[in-house]
Amino acid sequence: MTDIRRIEAARTRLAGNIRRTPLLHAPSLDRIAGRRILVKAECLQITGSFKARGAWSAISALPEDVRARGILAYSSGNHAQGIAWAAAKHGVSAVIVMPEDAPAAKVAGTKGYGAEVVQYDRARESREDIGRALAAERGLTLIPPYDFPDVIAGQGTAGLEIAEQAAEAGVNQADVLVCCGGGGLSSGIALSLAATAPGLRMRPVEPVGFDDVKRSLETGERQKNAALTGSICDAILTPEPGELTFPILRQHAGPGLLVSDEEALEAVGLAYRHLKIVVEPGGAVALAAAMFRSDEVPGDAVIAVASGGNVDSALFSKAIANA
Amino acid sequence: MTDIRRIEAARTRLAGNIRRTPLLHAPSLDRIAGRRILVKAECLQITGSFKARGAWSAISALPEDVRARGILAYSSGNHAQGIAWAAAKHGVSAVIVMPEDAPAAKVAGTKGYGAEVVQYDRARESREDIGRALAAERGLTLIPPYDFPDVIAGQGTAGLEIAEQAAEAGVNQADVLVCCGGGGLSSGIALSLAATAPGLRMRPVEPVGFDDVKRSLETGERQKNAALTGSICDAILTPEPGELTFPILRQHAGPGLLVSDEEALEAVGLAYRHLKIVVEPGGAVALAAAMFRSDEVPGDAVIAVASGGNVDSALFSKAIANA
Repeated sequence: MTDIRRIEAARTRLAGNIRRTPLLHAPSLDRIAGRRILVKAECLQITGSFKARGAWSAISALPEDVRARGILAYSSGNHAQGIAWAAAKHGVSAVIVMPEDAPAAKVAGTKGYGAEVVQYDRARESREDIGRALAAERGLTLIPPYDFPDVIAGQGTAGLEIAEQAAEAGVNQADVLVCCGGGGLSSGIALSLAATAPGLRMRPVEPVGFDDVKRSLETGERQKNAALTGSICDAILTPEPGELTFPILRQHAGPGLLVSDEEALEAVGLAYRHLKIVVEPGGAVALAAAMFRSDEVPGDAVIAVASGGNVDSALFSKAIANA
Repeated sequence: MTDIRRIEAARTRLAGNIRRTPLLHAPSLDRIAGRRILVKAECLQITGSFKARGAWSAISALPEDVRARGILAYSSGNHAQGIAWAAAKHGVSAVIVMPEDAPAAKVAGTKGYGAEVVQYDRARESREDIGRALAAERGLTLIPPYDFPDVIAGQGTAGLEIAEQAAEAGVNQADVLVCCGGGGLSSGIALSLAATAPGLRMRPVEPVGFDDVKRSLETGERQKNAALTGSICDAILTPEPGELTFPILRQHAGPGLLVSDEEALEAVGLAYRHLKIVVEPGGAVALAAAMFRSDEVPGDAVIAVASGGNVDSALFSKAIANA
């Protein structure tokens, strides 16, 4: 189970290895929004996304002899890079199982951190079968992207920082908008805020058409998405809320918010122009909601998490063309 | 005169108003460079560049009755935005004299901070005459972009932070590469490092063809540039080193470095890809020197200042196309 004590313990393990990312703001952005917009820039995290927190937390919590046998992960994106980096920094091997059609840049990035990449054919093979065989053969430990207590605890450390940084900025009452795929980051932050900053309320943000978390919160039961592709917010497209993350969200999250792909792209452009940070579309949905859902988000100040910046140059250029 | 006491005093005035920008690094960038590359991300500063430091420092140091009459500046770029922001935050008016052909985005940005923009015809009018007339008529105080003790002191606060952050990162011996136009930032940082981190050496970086500071350091006398246009590094094209900044550079700076426009653009792309920050070409020359002049820069670690991020979208897209 993940609770505030586990998050505090993760923070101790992360200290000195993970960046305390800044809570950015820009007077020019506040002027457009008509209120204060504070952005937790997790795109500036090591490996370019918050995933490094959960990866470090999980790998550092393993018993030394287990860790020494190596780590296994399935991912074509930010989790892969987080795991590859954290394993290498611990001096242990990592195997990442990726689909053959994963973008070359992401494969190269993951290999660049020293991981072994095993590719599979999405149509004919099961990554779970491949993973199980590898794990059995080499004694690897699987670290899932979100449904894992020490991953959630690691992501939750971002929430501890938000609580402190919001207080430093004089913000004690605000919605904290967080992009949401499987719910690792959002549930971790929700736990941290509930324990340390009760005036701050975590609310998940998803792309239109991939609103499993919003509907699950409304119905009280885990709902599935109809599709798994069809949005540029690839980093946060997951089939349904996690088994471990959903109970936390149900207890601590405020109502979900939805934004379109066009709004996510426009938020990428606003972050470029006003904050000088590179955010990927899936990482910009929270800022999009802060800017374009003001009727649904109360208060004089809004906090949005910019979760990652691993974005293709062509897409980024499109986003900033009119920024 | 600017000395370390003036810089320390500026830091006290800046506290709570200016961002302590992060010293970023990325394992993937270190791998390309073959050593540690630490980037002081002043593009994340309020108003998008370090200029906010000097502007705040100078305006906050004025006697209250002088400040209340208003501020005057000549600038088409980052200094204008810094002054406009700092004046507004002090509740006083600012008049910025800008050429008629200044980019619309920069004019709009400056007006957005609440400044009055007075435009002039570069070919037929003198900004100095216009400025003198305005100053006499309204009692405005001129804050120059670099040759002004409290501006240099404000920029120098970035050097105090670099000294502390380098020590935290375990770097006690390194070249600190700083983009250099008139020399406000580089001389301020040089003073701070000389006083607080003697193992860190400030070295100015300029675009090829605009090497006035490098040649001035070599000859011991202020040298002029042959041209004032012809590089994409517009933020750092100045006619010659400042009257106040050059003696400081002569005493404390290491040898100058030069990079081409192409290398500056490539550094913009590297900062985008690996650090997730938006840097303008003139702000990226130090990172370019860190990456592409390794034969001229000794040591296991290099620190580069990324001084600003106010860049046109089309140029930025060009820079990142192959990143």
